Amino acid sequence: MSQEQPRLQIAMLLYPGLTLLDLIGPQTVFSWFADIHLVWKTTDAIASDTGIKVHPTCAFETCPSNLDILFVPGGFGGDKFMIDAEVLGFLADRAATSKYVTSVCSGSLLLGAAGLLKGYKATSHWAVRDTLAGFGATPVDARVVVDRNRITGGGVTAGIDFGLTILAKLRGDDAAKLTQLAMEYDPQPPFNCGSPKSAGPEIIQQAMSAMAAEMARMAS
Amino acid sequence: MSQEQPRLQIAMLLYPGLTLLDLIGPQTVFSWFADIHLVWKTTDAIASDTGIKVHPTCAFETCPSNLDILFVPGGFGGDKFMIDAEVLGFLADRAATSKYVTSVCSGSLLLGAAGLLKGYKATSHWAVRDTLAGFGATPVDARVVVDRNRITGGGVTAGIDFGLTILAKLRGDDAAKLTQLAMEYDPQPPFNCGSPKSAGPEIIQQAMSAMAAEMARMAS
Repeated sequence: MSQEQPRLQIAMLLYPGLTLLDLIGPQTVFSWFADIHLVWKTTDAIASDTGIKVHPTCAFETCPSNLDILFVPGGFGGDKFMIDAEVLGFLADRAATSKYVTSVCSGSLLLGAAGLLKGYKATSHWAVRDTLAGFGATPVDARVVVDRNRITGGGVTAGIDFGLTILAKLRGDDAAKLTQLAMEYDPQPPFNCGSPKSAGPEIIQQAMSAMAAEMARMAS
Repeated sequence: MSQEQPRLQIAMLLYPGLTLLDLIGPQTVFSWFADIHLVWKTTDAIASDTGIKVHPTCAFETCPSNLDILFVPGGFGGDKFMIDAEVLGFLADRAATSKYVTSVCSGSLLLGAAGLLKGYKATSHWAVRDTLAGFGATPVDARVVVDRNRITGGGVTAGIDFGLTILAKLRGDDAAKLTQLAMEYDPQPPFNCGSPKSAGPEIIQQAMSAMAAEMARMAS
């Protein structure tokens, strides 16, 4: 399947407190077509949001350049790295030679903090999307936003739609379609409440409270 | 949020070659309401399908009984455990005291092999669903199948629908709704091909070939 074209070279940023599903959605979509480099400051295992540990495959210094995709997942643990010069420096450096600079969920805030979304349309998790304007980006209410070589996805589960969209761009519609079928991505959400547009004020309030509690838990 | 009711006790089986997204979809859905026990024969890290390693939090012997949910993910690595007495014995033992006995994707074949789906309706990944009949189950073409206390989901991404369905049963619709919103589960698949019913013969053939290649890679 991947004989005809070289494997995509993809670096996915890890960090303590990332939302693991932000990472594993696109990682699963790309996996048959890509060498995936999981990268952090060191190669020590990091703990994701719910405690599951993930091992980096390389450190910042040893992460390849000239990537097809540089990817940043979101997560309640991301805030503290928005002022981390080492993380932002790494992102800016690899972005300069990457074909696509991408994120899912609040990962776009890290791209923004690294100066990589200035003048670009972008999206994020609905609860923080508007803060992208503070980085000179134009927030867009959409599940996947493509603006030149910046591709950003909405919250958490948007990573699957995001991944398939990029795979179609880089390896053609058939590659994305066979992947979508293999992953049986024929969603049937039990409720019509996956967006603030459909959820109604009470559920929005409950979700905001739950997320605030989770932020506090991660910070403590 | 979880003050009012006790945290759900959930055991999720790990094994080498599991499909990580099968696990992380429902794990993310349950996480705010549950203590999740990741269980394998030993507590040594196991490698999932694409190489990402996961650390068990307990071994078979130390895994709690009287669970709310016993869960088995699918994966190309699962075949070899369908004749593993230690694995099947563990599943049968904990199933006897679990409120719900559940799976996503080909995880239902492990439940079947453990004798836990005899006389039940169940589903699995579309490519292997019919083999459930060999275990005395009635295969059903549906994304989530509930038959008494057996709840089985379809392939890979069905784990998100599956998780929300169970969470609604155990903690009410509002819990599932706020979780669906927090995960921004408002899917917009780029193609209409996530099921064999919509994909057409060519994409089905390509997906089958890709999965066969993956099976061979895992077995080698």
